[in-house]
Amino acid sequence: MSEVSFRDWMKERQAHFESVAEAGIPGSDVFPQGLHEAMRWSILEGGKRVRPLLCYAASAITRAKPEAADAAALSLECIHSYSLVHDDLPCMDNDLLRHGKASTHAKFGFAEAVLAGDALQAEAFRVIADAPVEPRSAVRLTRILAEAAGSRGMCGGQAYDLSLTGSRNAAIAIEDLRRLHAMKTGALIRAAVLMGAVSGDIPETDERKLLDSLSDFGRAIGLAFQVVDDVLDVTGSAETLGKTAGKDEAEEKPTYVSLLGLEGARSLAQQSCSEALAALDQIESLPGYAGSTKRLAEIAGYVVNRDR
Amino acid sequence: MSEVSFRDWMKERQAHFESVAEAGIPGSDVFPQGLHEAMRWSILEGGKRVRPLLCYAASAITRAKPEAADAAALSLECIHSYSLVHDDLPCMDNDLLRHGKASTHAKFGFAEAVLAGDALQAEAFRVIADAPVEPRSAVRLTRILAEAAGSRGMCGGQAYDLSLTGSRNAAIAIEDLRRLHAMKTGALIRAAVLMGAVSGDIPETDERKLLDSLSDFGRAIGLAFQVVDDVLDVTGSAETLGKTAGKDEAEEKPTYVSLLGLEGARSLAQQSCSEALAALDQIESLPGYAGSTKRLAEIAGYVVNRDR
Repeated sequence: MSEVSFRDWMKERQAHFESVAEAGIPGSDVFPQGLHEAMRWSILEGGKRVRPLLCYAASAITRAKPEAADAAALSLECIHSYSLVHDDLPCMDNDLLRHGKASTHAKFGFAEAVLAGDALQAEAFRVIADAPVEPRSAVRLTRILAEAAGSRGMCGGQAYDLSLTGSRNAAIAIEDLRRLHAMKTGALIRAAVLMGAVSGDIPETDERKLLDSLSDFGRAIGLAFQVVDDVLDVTGSAETLGKTAGKDEAEEKPTYVSLLGLEGARSLAQQSCSEALAALDQIESLPGYAGSTKRLAEIAGYVVNRDR
Repeated sequence: MSEVSFRDWMKERQAHFESVAEAGIPGSDVFPQGLHEAMRWSILEGGKRVRPLLCYAASAITRAKPEAADAAALSLECIHSYSLVHDDLPCMDNDLLRHGKASTHAKFGFAEAVLAGDALQAEAFRVIADAPVEPRSAVRLTRILAEAAGSRGMCGGQAYDLSLTGSRNAAIAIEDLRRLHAMKTGALIRAAVLMGAVSGDIPETDERKLLDSLSDFGRAIGLAFQVVDDVLDVTGSAETLGKTAGKDEAEEKPTYVSLLGLEGARSLAQQSCSEALAALDQIESLPGYAGSTKRLAEIAGYVVNRDR
């Protein structure tokens, strides 16, 4: 495995995930066809699959069964995809373009998009319940995902974002922005790393240090990811990004770039990346784990250096 | 227990559930406060608690721990409440009144209502993951709830409803309506009954017959519930119902009343109730289960004879 380049590994995993999602989400010939079509539109052929990649990379650390890691990856992407569908709604960010194609409500209608998102969230937990893991691990995966997706995670971050946008002229501190993103995007990214590891068996003696370090890694990489997103919103084009660029500035949304400047934001991304790598060193130093975090480290580099 | 009248039992369980939900959903002082306030608005002081009542009644059959039944009941009502919040949205049924008070979007705004619903769904699965049951039971509860809530259950039924409303002038057969409601409302009602039983331990020898019979009961009572809802929409007032009455007819929605007439619908409700009671007889005939389905039978009678 170690001789496969990161780029090839990533491409292979992305293609593999596509087939997992293709097979795992009910077909558009399954009743009710329209809803399944909208769900598939929302999750298939979409995005960089950062959360599945993190999940697969972390699953290597605990040598998880491939089908167990697949289930964890799919459940994560169900949640991520549903959140994009709902975020794009007219009453939210009102975006017509997503991953270079029509957003779900633009294609299927508002009500159908609400339902497709809702059903994708339920599907996430169905996938975990059917995953080939010990019941104890399934419960743990459910808890991690539900907490990351819920009011103290992703949904809470989105709500906090709405409340800040409402008061956009007030001074917003960098701490508020970090808190916002730690919930809105960070929680699910951290969950991806933890779920990858938990989809395998963790020896009790290593559990505490392993999960703490992965949690630190997830938190740091989540921050880096969002900071880079803000940078790309300023420096990227819609063509490269597959979504509307320059939106944040047009909406006077507070971003890491607006608060720290372009160079300040880039430097924060680098610093977070270093923190992420330091957390991986903690795992590498455990007996038996040398070399196990290679792909996670590569993803950290990719997140910071990507151009879309 | 048997000397407590059904009315008193129901009142006690409803009040008990209120305290379970009150304590189980994050307080409105927990960050992000606005979202938690909207979630609490959506689930507290709402409705007849039919699903929790069914869950508690079914939990008596397997002598479930009270806290386990509480968790199952709360997770069910999180799903039911979120579905009402999303159903009431302007892009769906556009209803401003729910349980005699402002619907969530009318009170908090559209985006906040989408998020409150989303967060309540995540909360449902978090509650199960934290429930004091064996991991094997928790996985089973998760699977039952996720399937009932998802694209082949509640969300699927709602999507099917939308597609029928779009073609409302086409002839809609009674079979279509039954299929619609079996998914839209029936799936979660059936889940409530199953989850109540699964929140306790089921002896392997009884499992098949017990769950099959409860499934039959749930299906029959779900149909009866919906038929009576349609009847009450015609015969009830907004004051009694706590929601807008006569909406179905105004929207030319197909209902059991529009397809079967008022008497035909009432007779279908009675017939379904009889089928539900016959399913309970199957359980009562198992050694050791005599008298265990008393409350479920009483709920069946209540569902058919209620006036709101």
